Amino acid sequence: MKLGQLGEFGLINRIYQPPKDKNIIKGIGDDAAVIKIGNKILVITTDTLVDGDHFSLKYFTPEQVGKKAIEINVSDIGSMGAIPKYALVSLVLPRDLDVDIIERIYKGMRQSGKKHNLEIIGGNITHGKQLVIDIDMIGELKQKNLCLRSHAKPGDFILVTGDLGSSTAGLNLFLNDIKGHRAVKLKHLEPKAKYHKVKPFLKYINAMIDVSDGLASEVKHICKQSQTGAIIFKDNIPIKDSTRLAARALNKDPIDYALYGGEDFELVFTVSEENLSKVKGFLVGEITKRKGVYIYEKGKEIPINKPGYDHFKHRST
Amino acid sequence: MKLGQLGEFGLINRIYQPPKDKNIIKGIGDDAAVIKIGNKILVITTDTLVDGDHFSLKYFTPEQVGKKAIEINVSDIGSMGAIPKYALVSLVLPRDLDVDIIERIYKGMRQSGKKHNLEIIGGNITHGKQLVIDIDMIGELKQKNLCLRSHAKPGDFILVTGDLGSSTAGLNLFLNDIKGHRAVKLKHLEPKAKYHKVKPFLKYINAMIDVSDGLASEVKHICKQSQTGAIIFKDNIPIKDSTRLAARALNKDPIDYALYGGEDFELVFTVSEENLSKVKGFLVGEITKRKGVYIYEKGKEIPINKPGYDHFKHRST
Repeated sequence: MKLGQLGEFGLINRIYQPPKDKNIIKGIGDDAAVIKIGNKILVITTDTLVDGDHFSLKYFTPEQVGKKAIEINVSDIGSMGAIPKYALVSLVLPRDLDVDIIERIYKGMRQSGKKHNLEIIGGNITHGKQLVIDIDMIGELKQKNLCLRSHAKPGDFILVTGDLGSSTAGLNLFLNDIKGHRAVKLKHLEPKAKYHKVKPFLKYINAMIDVSDGLASEVKHICKQSQTGAIIFKDNIPIKDSTRLAARALNKDPIDYALYGGEDFELVFTVSEENLSKVKGFLVGEITKRKGVYIYEKGKEIPINKPGYDHFKHRST
Repeated sequence: MKLGQLGEFGLINRIYQPPKDKNIIKGIGDDAAVIKIGNKILVITTDTLVDGDHFSLKYFTPEQVGKKAIEINVSDIGSMGAIPKYALVSLVLPRDLDVDIIERIYKGMRQSGKKHNLEIIGGNITHGKQLVIDIDMIGELKQKNLCLRSHAKPGDFILVTGDLGSSTAGLNLFLNDIKGHRAVKLKHLEPKAKYHKVKPFLKYINAMIDVSDGLASEVKHICKQSQTGAIIFKDNIPIKDSTRLAARALNKDPIDYALYGGEDFELVFTVSEENLSKVKGFLVGEITKRKGVYIYEKGKEIPINKPGYDHFKHRST
């Protein structure tokens, strides 16, 4: 069978094996792995940008590519409730690439690193046909702040830290060569990790995940691992006017960008009713005992069957 | 300037910045980074295999590719004096790749992982034009066992844990489509980390590095970072008869494979005269106060000017 038929999640199911070491608090299956090292808890993640898929130098500056590589990993670390500390940078570089471009990508990585008080401590450089940037990141975690996808409970409210859909709208503006809409395009070019928004109230959060593949997909991940269902209130999904205008120019429904797009890197988290007053965010849904994820709209509950972004089944560019 | 002109080491010099965090014992510039986490010391490394460069499915089985991906990282962890513990696997996969191949690569990774008591705790999967396997590995270290490249001292002897040149001979047998020489080819297809060979006497080792780019290149790395020179005794370089026979079939000098080839993954280490009796290995040279790396042959000292393998300046396949 070809990978394009099986898809990303089918593949993960096939190769997954549960961890054995008792110091592994969480292995494969969350935004980052969690391990106990002596008296500390570390979270470790890796995320990859491939030229032509996750960015294009046609509309990204090299600095923006570097920043994105760091931010998406910081986002994964942050969505576990942890603080980023160290990064390794692994580059696959075509031989005919300008050194200037690589230096500018590094500059972007350093700028984002500095912002998050993060140090690049190592890496690897080799060559290949296509520019690939793989970042490994290590963060530190206080046990009480740990936010796993599996920690949602029926009755929890689902909140999101900010507006959704703008990054996908921005990408589609570029792909369709539509002029203007600068602010929306910038949301695609300069994604930013949002963990600072939840830092003050981490201990009240049950489950958390970052929006890399669309709200519907992320809520499904939480539900699958928490063995719950969920309902998303369509009218509550925060979408900016600028995103709505961009979607109109593209003849698309901005809700689709929010639900099935991706790369917003806002955080989706669940919190008990009791703790709702202690957190900040947009309330977009509820965790239910009943399985399945539904959209509530005009008095009706519609099941979400559409899958999230799959790196092998869909083509983004 | 194009990357092909500047080369790997030129690029590293351009992007390098020294670490600031006091918990970073060693940042960029060794086989792995070394950081203090609470009461523990971790070593962290990343190494990448690119299809068509570091392996070819024309002569590697997928299991061998998986094993190689793990072994080369275990080798980097081991050359710091550490023990491998956890790995993350980052894959860039072409959409038309058979799922069976990926499963077999994973099988190989797990087999090597099991051998080294190492767990795969996470990773990332995305797609691209070319199969890329990037492994991040974390190991644990006892401070007294730390072996940095910079720890060599004038008067130290240079030792190597095993025979050299066979992997490069094996690769060239494949590239030139020469039949036979099974054992030599296997050394290329199934590289193995050798840290178990030095484990019993780690505390007596000063500097250490693994042979990924040829003995000359590795000794130069040690000398550069230790601010010393070295002399390599040509007649002492351990080369197997099978490697000599393969080199003869290829019309090459096997010494060139040992000095300028690579991927033997034996360990090169330095030890003081006083501790020489406490270690095991092939004595191949001496660290000198005089700068420069020389080859001693028939009463003459010849400076080594030939560079080691550079991922951008040379083409291996």
